[in-house]
Amino acid sequence: MSACVLYHFAFDPGSRAVRLALGEARIGFSETPVRPWEDGCPVATLNPSGMPPVLQIADAGGRALTLCEPAAILGWLEERTKEPFLLPADAAERAEVRRLLAWFDRRFTDEVNAVLLHERMEKPLLRLGPPEARALRAGREALKSHLVMMEGLLAQRDALAGRRISQADIVAAAHLSVLDYFGEVSWAAYPAVKTWYMKLKSRPCFRPLLADRFPGVQASAWYHDLDF
Amino acid sequence: MSACVLYHFAFDPGSRAVRLALGEARIGFSETPVRPWEDGCPVATLNPSGMPPVLQIADAGGRALTLCEPAAILGWLEERTKEPFLLPADAAERAEVRRLLAWFDRRFTDEVNAVLLHERMEKPLLRLGPPEARALRAGREALKSHLVMMEGLLAQRDALAGRRISQADIVAAAHLSVLDYFGEVSWAAYPAVKTWYMKLKSRPCFRPLLADRFPGVQASAWYHDLDF
Repeated sequence: MSACVLYHFAFDPGSRAVRLALGEARIGFSETPVRPWEDGCPVATLNPSGMPPVLQIADAGGRALTLCEPAAILGWLEERTKEPFLLPADAAERAEVRRLLAWFDRRFTDEVNAVLLHERMEKPLLRLGPPEARALRAGREALKSHLVMMEGLLAQRDALAGRRISQADIVAAAHLSVLDYFGEVSWAAYPAVKTWYMKLKSRPCFRPLLADRFPGVQASAWYHDLDF
Repeated sequence: MSACVLYHFAFDPGSRAVRLALGEARIGFSETPVRPWEDGCPVATLNPSGMPPVLQIADAGGRALTLCEPAAILGWLEERTKEPFLLPADAAERAEVRRLLAWFDRRFTDEVNAVLLHERMEKPLLRLGPPEARALRAGREALKSHLVMMEGLLAQRDALAGRRISQADIVAAAHLSVLDYFGEVSWAAYPAVKTWYMKLKSRPCFRPLLADRFPGVQASAWYHDLDF
């Protein structure tokens, strides 16, 4: 047996992806919520990037393994048993998972999060003033194009990268869940994405995320609803 | 047996990482150099992001596997045999490889490439005018801090993530090799990084990169030298 501690920020998409994956793996962990932009954040001494998520695992022998960044944690989860977990066995599907992970890590993060989450989330947290209308519009336009892309995939597939849920679904759902809290996802316009997200949201791993509260911002009316 | 075609751009760090890894694996491939910013680039129909590298593999049965983005290609290379290739067997070292890959994918790309390579490489390619002194300075300062980080690791380790070369070394060396072409790396100030890079540069996989030519820009005086 091992004891796990997760350092995370509840509205960081990478932290959320890891919480979902740990939940899927039914690995119990204790939580240390962190605010990485504040002095003295404990993650600063654990991860050179200063960013959550960081998972610390102490085994029975007292040795500790420190996993920094979502990819390291998802990789460890994948490899701790012989069974495929969130990576499919098929080579083409694995490649598709990795293509989509790169897409969300770069494209989605740069085009949507760096604009829309910056305005809606980082500005209030860091007291950077009110959101700018132009940036909100640009971020919302970018989000639309990503939802169109996802709708195209999910109209043909049960999961983003193929037949069953993978790291790609976990990461994509983590991103959308943060935007959904702020009411930024127009689900009705993307029926295949909505059906996919409803299925994911109904899984037990999603429950802790639905209980998160952002200071000073109420969740969208449908954020907690499994049937929205 | 399989036939491989690599679509790549010679000065794209991700494309270079894949060429190095294919070379390390001694996998022969034919090359299709691409210019992803031009209309009709063949990668546009292969990878939804429109970006190289893309590796197409046709097996003897005529089935094709299309691998888009460096992570998918490195992942396939890792998994095609049972032997560890560029991921160490040890869980802590694997986590360190993945932490560093995330670092180069995000931090290095955002802080160095998006500034310094934009000024030195993208501006002439896209005819965006001369480089700006302020951006060059900012990119060079950022590069210094990354070289300091690497020097710290390589003063204690033979390879970036541990004892033997891994995906992290391949990706980091690919990034530095592009900057080195443009004379942007002050090797003398980072002796451990220099020793590490000399060792990598002497490997057969590096040879094709040393033959690359950027239109209108001569390589730095030491770019081709194995002993610099």
